Amino acid sequence: MSKTNQQDRLFEKYNIRTDLALESHQAIIEQEGPPELPGVKVHTEEEEGITLTRITVESDLGAQLMGKAPGNYSTLEAPGLRMHNRDLHERLAQLLAKEIEWFFDQAALGEEDALLVVGLGNWNATPDALGPKSVENLMVTRHLLEMSPPELRRGLRPISAISPGVLGLTGIETGEIIMGVAERIGAKAVICIDALASRSVDRLCSTIQVSDTGIHPGAGVGNRRLAINKETLGIPVIAIGVPTVVHAVTIVSDAMDLIEQGHIPSADGDQRPERVQFNIDPEAIMGSRQQRPNANAGVAAGDKRQIISQVLEPYFGTMIVTPKEIDLLIDEVSDVIAGALNTSFHEGVSYDEVFKYLS
Amino acid sequence: MSKTNQQDRLFEKYNIRTDLALESHQAIIEQEGPPELPGVKVHTEEEEGITLTRITVESDLGAQLMGKAPGNYSTLEAPGLRMHNRDLHERLAQLLAKEIEWFFDQAALGEEDALLVVGLGNWNATPDALGPKSVENLMVTRHLLEMSPPELRRGLRPISAISPGVLGLTGIETGEIIMGVAERIGAKAVICIDALASRSVDRLCSTIQVSDTGIHPGAGVGNRRLAINKETLGIPVIAIGVPTVVHAVTIVSDAMDLIEQGHIPSADGDQRPERVQFNIDPEAIMGSRQQRPNANAGVAAGDKRQIISQVLEPYFGTMIVTPKEIDLLIDEVSDVIAGALNTSFHEGVSYDEVFKYLS
Amino acid sequence: MSKTNQQDRLFEKYNIRTDLALESHQAIIEQEGPPELPGVKVHTEEEEGITLTRITVESDLGAQLMGKAPGNYSTLEAPGLRMHNRDLHERLAQLLAKEIEWFFDQAALGEEDALLVVGLGNWNATPDALGPKSVENLMVTRHLLEMSPPELRRGLRPISAISPGVLGLTGIETGEIIMGVAERIGAKAVICIDALASRSVDRLCSTIQVSDTGIHPGAGVGNRRLAINKETLGIPVIAIGVPTVVHAVTIVSDAMDLIEQGHIPSADGDQRPERVQFNIDPEAIMGSRQQRPNANAGVAAGDKRQIISQVLEPYFGTMIVTPKEIDLLIDEVSDVIAGALNTSFHEGVSYDEVFKYLS
Amino acid sequence: MSKTNQQDRLFEKYNIRTDLALESHQAIIEQEGPPELPGVKVHTEEEEGITLTRITVESDLGAQLMGKAPGNYSTLEAPGLRMHNRDLHERLAQLLAKEIEWFFDQAALGEEDALLVVGLGNWNATPDALGPKSVENLMVTRHLLEMSPPELRRGLRPISAISPGVLGLTGIETGEIIMGVAERIGAKAVICIDALASRSVDRLCSTIQVSDTGIHPGAGVGNRRLAINKETLGIPVIAIGVPTVVHAVTIVSDAMDLIEQGHIPSADGDQRPERVQFNIDPEAIMGSRQQRPNANAGVAAGDKRQIISQVLEPYFGTMIVTPKEIDLLIDEVSDVIAGALNTSFHEGVSYDEVFKYLS
Repeated sequence: MSKTNQQDRLFEKYNIRTDLALESHQAIIEQEGPPELPGVKVHTEEEEGITLTRITVESDLGAQLMGKAPGNYSTLEAPGLRMHNRDLHERLAQLLAKEIEWFFDQAALGEEDALLVVGLGNWNATPDALGPKSVENLMVTRHLLEMSPPELRRGLRPISAISPGVLGLTGIETGEIIMGVAERIGAKAVICIDALASRSVDRLCSTIQVSDTGIHPGAGVGNRRLAINKETLGIPVIAIGVPTVVHAVTIVSDAMDLIEQGHIPSADGDQRPERVQFNIDPEAIMGSRQQRPNANAGVAAGDKRQIISQVLEPYFGTMIVTPKEIDLLIDEVSDVIAGALNTSFHEGVSYDEVFKYLS
Repeated sequence: MSKTNQQDRLFEKYNIRTDLALESHQAIIEQEGPPELPGVKVHTEEEEGITLTRITVESDLGAQLMGKAPGNYSTLEAPGLRMHNRDLHERLAQLLAKEIEWFFDQAALGEEDALLVVGLGNWNATPDALGPKSVENLMVTRHLLEMSPPELRRGLRPISAISPGVLGLTGIETGEIIMGVAERIGAKAVICIDALASRSVDRLCSTIQVSDTGIHPGAGVGNRRLAINKETLGIPVIAIGVPTVVHAVTIVSDAMDLIEQGHIPSADGDQRPERVQFNIDPEAIMGSRQQRPNANAGVAAGDKRQIISQVLEPYFGTMIVTPKEIDLLIDEVSDVIAGALNTSFHEGVSYDEVFKYLS
Repeated sequence: MSKTNQQDRLFEKYNIRTDLALESHQAIIEQEGPPELPGVKVHTEEEEGITLTRITVESDLGAQLMGKAPGNYSTLEAPGLRMHNRDLHERLAQLLAKEIEWFFDQAALGEEDALLVVGLGNWNATPDALGPKSVENLMVTRHLLEMSPPELRRGLRPISAISPGVLGLTGIETGEIIMGVAERIGAKAVICIDALASRSVDRLCSTIQVSDTGIHPGAGVGNRRLAINKETLGIPVIAIGVPTVVHAVTIVSDAMDLIEQGHIPSADGDQRPERVQFNIDPEAIMGSRQQRPNANAGVAAGDKRQIISQVLEPYFGTMIVTPKEIDLLIDEVSDVIAGALNTSFHEGVSYDEVFKYLS
Repeated sequence: MSKTNQQDRLFEKYNIRTDLALESHQAIIEQEGPPELPGVKVHTEEEEGITLTRITVESDLGAQLMGKAPGNYSTLEAPGLRMHNRDLHERLAQLLAKEIEWFFDQAALGEEDALLVVGLGNWNATPDALGPKSVENLMVTRHLLEMSPPELRRGLRPISAISPGVLGLTGIETGEIIMGVAERIGAKAVICIDALASRSVDRLCSTIQVSDTGIHPGAGVGNRRLAINKETLGIPVIAIGVPTVVHAVTIVSDAMDLIEQGHIPSADGDQRPERVQFNIDPEAIMGSRQQRPNANAGVAAGDKRQIISQVLEPYFGTMIVTPKEIDLLIDEVSDVIAGALNTSFHEGVSYDEVFKYLS
């Protein structure tokens, strides 16, 4: 079963559309219990204003349950990112730099290995411009190192960066462009930066995910059909993503779920839907697509789709929900990403200087 | 009762948030019947691909029912606007030019009367940039005419244009800026162009409203607190608006209504909720705020608000729903508006040349 | 004699076109000697990487000689501004904040006096966008203070800001828009930010001028015809300007001067044209426009104009010279200006926090 | 002798820096006579408001004399392009489409051959954004055709397009990116669109050059070091270029030449410098770099360089001269290019519809 099917299945079953492993995990736990998913390891750390969660999907069963490929997913949550708090930005960028370095170690990258950074998305569509904006601020060095004598290049890492555009404007799958360029320049790994969709609006522009499982078809704000990962490119792919939109489908569906469950939250009380507990039967999940009773019993999935489509036609899948001040929020979070990358790429840039070399 | 209260009341009662008189009218008819509203006149014309509806709110009762001030509201609907169809764009701009001229006649404006065009909204936030974008393409002439000898100015209309920005960036109510400038230059009328919010996504960037009742507090994509109309400015105000967003609150509420009504649309059948018919009692509406039974009986309004707020926190009122390709759509519709204005302003520009003088 | 004529005269006589008092002063000294100009006081301070020069034009004679109105001109020169040096940016913004505060003292502005900041120029034309860009980053407070109870507003200064656009796009003189708005909101002084033209390319985006003589017709990158100063507005006007272009006319003329003077600079030697010394006869300057012999004897002024026009047709006066990376340079210097203004406006913002509240 | 040297040599000898073959040709004729250059064929056609000149460089001698590689150079001159004249835009786009088709025939391209369009330059630097802007408006089809059954694809041409960015932002030579992508997608030819530098300001945004000799190192507004042509890519390269800047060096040098020649143009008379006629000695030109007497005898080339560098430091080579309204001009000419490409690419788009499918 391909990754696409995994995503589709999650959506079909729970009406959840998210690119964050953290949200997939929470949703599964919420909907199905039990406290832990088999084959999925979760580790959490906190510091003032920032929560770091490392999720490792260790088995195919875990991958099936989560709808996410086996691998590592680190998520940094910092609600203060939306508050224009410079101190928090700086600490977050430092933490992100260290997390990226951890992924470099996992991928066994050497300190002189050439990297290709790819800003995915459409630079003309604000919520999809995160990748190109981050790349613009990056310190690229490959062309400078190529002109230096070999003895001076020791310990320096050649960095290149491209923003390949989107399929609708190029006619070429983004993955093909990356393959062509990565091969030509001999990159040892690819770092992709992408705008994501999350399930909940409170994660918009305040959450950063780093993962080593690549970019999946249909993920992100744009529409991609070809995976960008180690299998397709032949070299490690580290993806950095920030949710900038919620699909309109998701918030409509969430509202319907709340009604279906007869859950009208009290102002002072529990703000989360009550969990309907039952046991997971891994065999059933892995082996077949047979429909099992679930919490959303009141309205059949097909009917829900019809309601959603009635509210969202003629745009349906392309309608996005986004905060009004999205332009400003994306400027700020792309600075955090570029600063963290500069720091993790170059020995000479210390954590104190995380914002010093933004161009 | 102020206009603000009218709007709020409509929202409280039916969970409808729209800046289009056409949608208010449809919603009232849908929710309350009967086929006609007292004090509201509706006239419709069609030509290939374009529907023109003129609504006249003639009495205070009509205004109360509609939640719209007494006056004229013309709406041009052209779903093809989203299809990049140049022929349709041209015909639409011509129709719009004629409609604007009709409003000039209503306001008894002379052909040499100086006009101030105002592009409302924030030029840095894509869905709110409609006004400034339209104004950029306009042919302004006031400064040229001032340098000409009086005998050459005969029959020529001095046009000025400003994009005053938004309260959060200026610290000044937009209405105050317009007052200051209109008075200084002796404008005889103000034409405002503004991005609006509609109730339904299928009107986004495909509907244009012209009205002579001004801009109301809280309307549009931005947040305004001061009315911009004949009472505040002392001169006629003609407003041209295009819906570019749907408030996230609206689509969630719409979905909930459909469920509440037990209405699961069939794929091949009626796509509109069945109307629950009952008679309007104007006295009750005008005289008091007492709650009457309505179609949304299943869930109390307060509970709905809680569900919506749970789905949309921490952004709530500022979350907007918009198509991904909004940048492109706004470019195109602002050309239509600027072309129509150039044609209606200047004797020398014929309907055939509606796009000729876009700068 | 109007200010326009002063500028024209300077240009006619020496082919110098500059908006910087510092450059006018240097040019006069260079061309005419003697070491000091009557009626003009010059004071210079230095700190690491930054030179501050305060020029006071004290008399009409000084004004005539300089081609600048009587008043104060402070210039901060920091060549490092072009090097993306964050530390220098911060120190420069702090110095600029203090200099602006000195101008506030000169204008006897109280700490609660309302100020209107005006971003002059065209936000769509990169080299002219300095004003609007600076204004975008500003902390505006007037609308917030208006909603606060009077006892809480004590010591707080209401700040408003507008970017009025340019004559060609609005049809209205910028000065008229400012008058209309300043009067309406009761501003006690106006702060204008404008892109300037300098004589020499090495000052582009590395020099900031603060002055209290307002904006003169024909100055800046755009073309203005109406003065914006205390006489026209009735309140003090403090202008902050940064050269972002050199007029093409200027560099062509400079090159011709060097040839005319037979001065071919030696690679290691003196890089400045030799001064041709002679005495100034103030009577002659003030009293008449009669042509006197000068250093440019070889080619008559009229012939020069013809050569320049031959090289620059059909654009002539509108051709500008600018560095390729102008977009980036303007982003950076507008941050310095907005940071300095935030600090000088608000008691609560300390010099350490000069970049903290950039929005 | 490499192409770089050819360019450098032209610059050293005549202080001419231009990317237009038409200007090189004129300059050589002006400076050296005689009426014709050996190995260079010139053909001119005119229609109302547009001049088409086809220059064919047929031999190595011609290439040496011109400083341009052997091949075809077609130039469309339309001064009215700067006047916002829609009719002229349309006729020009039609002519350009036909000219591009002629180059397709020369390159023996089949009607189903896949093409890769490349928008060279930096989308963030206005005068360098011509390529990316043109590409944005293009109708790309490759991804659509790939999803169609083979029998439906007959006669349809797969079009892809990329904007690879500039070396300073990517760290990768543009040529390398093109190679990687063209190879990956199996393109049969590459069409490059690039902003050029011209010698004279009156050609800015009013002249379009099509050529089949590729892009040379150091040409265009950006700085490229690697050729993009048939030798490096292995497939035909058709380049479409529009001058958007004049190097500041050029206009200063031109002014100096006029003075040196003692040529002060009379207002009513000949506006071109008198030609100093003497015979070309091809042997000398091909065989050696020995300096021969020329019109610029008055000031040695080295001294000129010093004067120029004194006027333009610290930016020198990166200073550009451009009209103030460059943003608008580039928008318009990129529409002409995109329209012409759409028409020449796709059988289904007729000349009448040259602007119909701009996206």
